Amino acid sequence: MSAAGFELTIGQLLRAPAQRNPDQTIHDGEGGVRTYRQLHARIDQLGAALTRLGLGRGATIAVMDWDTPRYLECYFAVPMLGATLHTVNIRLSPEQILYTINHAEDDAILCHEDFLPILLPLLPRITRPATLILLSDRPDAPLPPGFAGEFERLLAAEAPGFTFPDLTEDTRATLFYTTGTTGDPKGVTYSHRQLVLHTLGVVAAFGPVPGRGGIKTDDVYMPITPLFHVHAWGYPFVATFLGLKQVYPGRYEPARLLSLLSGHRVTYSHCVPTILAMLLAAPEAAGTDLSHWKVTIGGAALPEGLALQARAKGIDIHAGYGMSETCPIICLADMAASQTSDDIKLRTATGKAAPLVTLRVVDPDLRDVPHDGRTTGEVVVRAPWLTHDYLRNDAGTAELWAGGWMHTGDVGHMAPDGTLRITDRLKDVIKSGGEWVSSLALESLASTAPGVREVAAVGVPDDRWGERPVLVTVIDGDDAVENTIRARLERAVAAGELPKWAVPDRVVRVTAIPKTSVGKLDKKRIRQMLASGEIG
Amino acid sequence: MSAAGFELTIGQLLRAPAQRNPDQTIHDGEGGVRTYRQLHARIDQLGAALTRLGLGRGATIAVMDWDTPRYLECYFAVPMLGATLHTVNIRLSPEQILYTINHAEDDAILCHEDFLPILLPLLPRITRPATLILLSDRPDAPLPPGFAGEFERLLAAEAPGFTFPDLTEDTRATLFYTTGTTGDPKGVTYSHRQLVLHTLGVVAAFGPVPGRGGIKTDDVYMPITPLFHVHAWGYPFVATFLGLKQVYPGRYEPARLLSLLSGHRVTYSHCVPTILAMLLAAPEAAGTDLSHWKVTIGGAALPEGLALQARAKGIDIHAGYGMSETCPIICLADMAASQTSDDIKLRTATGKAAPLVTLRVVDPDLRDVPHDGRTTGEVVVRAPWLTHDYLRNDAGTAELWAGGWMHTGDVGHMAPDGTLRITDRLKDVIKSGGEWVSSLALESLASTAPGVREVAAVGVPDDRWGERPVLVTVIDGDDAVENTIRARLERAVAAGELPKWAVPDRVVRVTAIPKTSVGKLDKKRIRQMLASGEIG
Repeated sequence: MSAAGFELTIGQLLRAPAQRNPDQTIHDGEGGVRTYRQLHARIDQLGAALTRLGLGRGATIAVMDWDTPRYLECYFAVPMLGATLHTVNIRLSPEQILYTINHAEDDAILCHEDFLPILLPLLPRITRPATLILLSDRPDAPLPPGFAGEFERLLAAEAPGFTFPDLTEDTRATLFYTTGTTGDPKGVTYSHRQLVLHTLGVVAAFGPVPGRGGIKTDDVYMPITPLFHVHAWGYPFVATFLGLKQVYPGRYEPARLLSLLSGHRVTYSHCVPTILAMLLAAPEAAGTDLSHWKVTIGGAALPEGLALQARAKGIDIHAGYGMSETCPIICLADMAASQTSDDIKLRTATGKAAPLVTLRVVDPDLRDVPHDGRTTGEVVVRAPWLTHDYLRNDAGTAELWAGGWMHTGDVGHMAPDGTLRITDRLKDVIKSGGEWVSSLALESLASTAPGVREVAAVGVPDDRWGERPVLVTVIDGDDAVENTIRARLERAVAAGELPKWAVPDRVVRVTAIPKTSVGKLDKKRIRQMLASGEIG
Repeated sequence: MSAAGFELTIGQLLRAPAQRNPDQTIHDGEGGVRTYRQLHARIDQLGAALTRLGLGRGATIAVMDWDTPRYLECYFAVPMLGATLHTVNIRLSPEQILYTINHAEDDAILCHEDFLPILLPLLPRITRPATLILLSDRPDAPLPPGFAGEFERLLAAEAPGFTFPDLTEDTRATLFYTTGTTGDPKGVTYSHRQLVLHTLGVVAAFGPVPGRGGIKTDDVYMPITPLFHVHAWGYPFVATFLGLKQVYPGRYEPARLLSLLSGHRVTYSHCVPTILAMLLAAPEAAGTDLSHWKVTIGGAALPEGLALQARAKGIDIHAGYGMSETCPIICLADMAASQTSDDIKLRTATGKAAPLVTLRVVDPDLRDVPHDGRTTGEVVVRAPWLTHDYLRNDAGTAELWAGGWMHTGDVGHMAPDGTLRITDRLKDVIKSGGEWVSSLALESLASTAPGVREVAAVGVPDDRWGERPVLVTVIDGDDAVENTIRARLERAVAAGELPKWAVPDRVVRVTAIPKTSVGKLDKKRIRQMLASGEIG
């Protein structure tokens, strides 16, 4: 009896849409379109082309590309060969990119010509001989020296009908690097089984939402989380499995994204808060109807100010929660309730555990803290799709999985009804007078003041209190905005929502807040800048 | 690192609703109600009670009960102990029930007092010593001699908070017997993994259906497929996983079922065609609003006449397809399209492969027949939730899995768009003049004639043609109905939908058509009755 019918492999995710909806379309940002039938044929051809180049079971194949349907083809063809797809974070520094390519031991690199200026100078220092393949949007792109071929020409040379090998479900499928603010990037891997189960778990969370919420087979999907970042949170697998119309936007430019959202009548996307803030701040946003758009916000907390701004545009916005090590989705706001309620706190809450996920909030001895919606602890998790280990990093793995639970490094509290709210990153907590101050609560409150574009709360050393909170802000407008922020914080104190000592002593105004390569606030850098007097 | 976070076990299906929706309710047919919180506590108590009786990992525990919330508790607690739940088909003959209990090697039998008259006389011939537990709906039911206890009293004796053992996902979870029309009943088993994946697959098929179709978290669920029959097609696991309001109807009496459907405003059920026909024929049906009801029909083909009758009542009716050996769901009508279309053929088509399922229609050498919507062959299947073998029946297993594909024993054809239509059971095909006549097509056509309550097409030996089709019917009304049937068949011939030689020579009128224990037409018995002159 063949194993093919029983192993949970990525190839299986492709069968359903090919059988059910072969004429559905997938679009790029330039007007290009292919059907699922064509997607299927191109995946076959890509499998054949990579095989012809000697790349197959056990190989690691890196991709440096914008968000394209071609990238989606790699999402399937590479793992279906039994190879590992290394999604290179193109926003890292060249030295970090070099580190990840060498650490991953890449056997091949598929590189878009826009990134050749980064890759070519690194080539002499890449330790393992790698097959180089050019990605280009022009039919006549010249092949740089040492390159084995250009993607489209390699595919065109292959006949249809490639047979991918049978794989066991524990075969490694993907690899990417997570960059903390300290130390080298850490390699995170997922198996076929984990990605299939994550897909089924996300569908179980989003599919049965009543009404127009969640994700349905008539939705139009466009990612605005880069495909290199935790495989775009797994949604390209979900969208393909459900046979949705898909749009891959290419480069992230606000006007272009808004035009695609409108032109294709995109109904579902996901992104970090900073990207949505950038879109809504673009001049073109005012004239774009976004009332048909559902957006899951993750990667960082959803500030109330941004949620209110999105609601004003009619966007069905809600928070999700996860991290690189969790595939990533482990928690979601209540999408059924948030449709009928305008309680913004419901949309911005970290939410409840996704199906098959067990979440706990624990003290340092791994004992549950009370579920009273107040007592904070570290969030730990179990689910069938958490990464088993960091690649060749036993110390990191031991820390991640201390006590048999995955440590998220996030601090939060849980309400009696199971609703989780993250209050801080463990490494970003502010401890003042022996008590924790929630930086996320401060940021969310400040974000509701009109004119506040960005805000970060960090702790600075204080002789008397240990630390004191400081707000670092990007403000459109004059100092009156600062007064509004203060007034909102005082109002929250009066309402008992915020302790008096949590109100920051200082509001610092800057022109831009430093971000990490995936668009999150870089609090380590902010603290450094405050300490050095660079800002403040 | 504990295995608990990674193995796909039935206990995991229970976590999501307990965390997300603990106050949702589960009802019995007598006005009784419990919350999911209480369900969870009772499953714990049942686990503790069975453990106290020495029943745990490796045990086989039989249940003989009506469709009750208590049975649902057994669906979870028994497998979560690492034991096997044997769902006894209470409609089999006592001798067959004895055979299954002995073949299963049951270590315990939970028996409702209504079935004591069947069980007690069998006890001396049950070969393995079995712990006997009484199920009753009365608090004061007397304990028959030799019984270890009564279900409710055993639960009441246990404190809350039982810890179920960690299990591997390949642990056997369920066992039931499928009765063909020949030979001994065959034992079909499923593992925890298979049942979890079936649940996720069904949710992936039903959840993302746009509009009001499919299954959403605000649906109200009531099974009308017995809980002993392929674990009610897996839906109790689905409904519990999604945290739906559930209604378990007890005995199947039309007036009672209709009253529950209406009283609880049930929105989703599943059943065989004969049960739905019985419900719609009941006098109470006329006064019952069923326009909020979605019904998946399986177990036998959905005749067009029944589909039209259901549509006239506003029911969202559609076909599903599967069998005891497939967990069972492998194929579903297009629920998205059928909402907006009144094309009855779309609703009655066997449909398209469910997610993660690969369906083929093959010739005797396992080669695909053309997907032209005409060429018939046997349907074979692969999916992550098909039974691996018949219990202690190597010959049966080898036949089932010949060539590495599960043989359904069904004959059908596939359209270019992947739509499957079953035309016959392999063992019920009618071959006339060297050509196959589709008995299901004849039945479906005849079913549209007003007054036709039931209809079966079978082949009878014929010297000239090998076999000739005969229609056996239950008709309300006079012989004019027979003429209408003939007229409809002739019209189909004229329209090119039916070959001329497929029109039956005879229409035989009977008062009842014999059925199998799960309500399907018993064609073997019908052929015997025609051959012996008992009918005809």
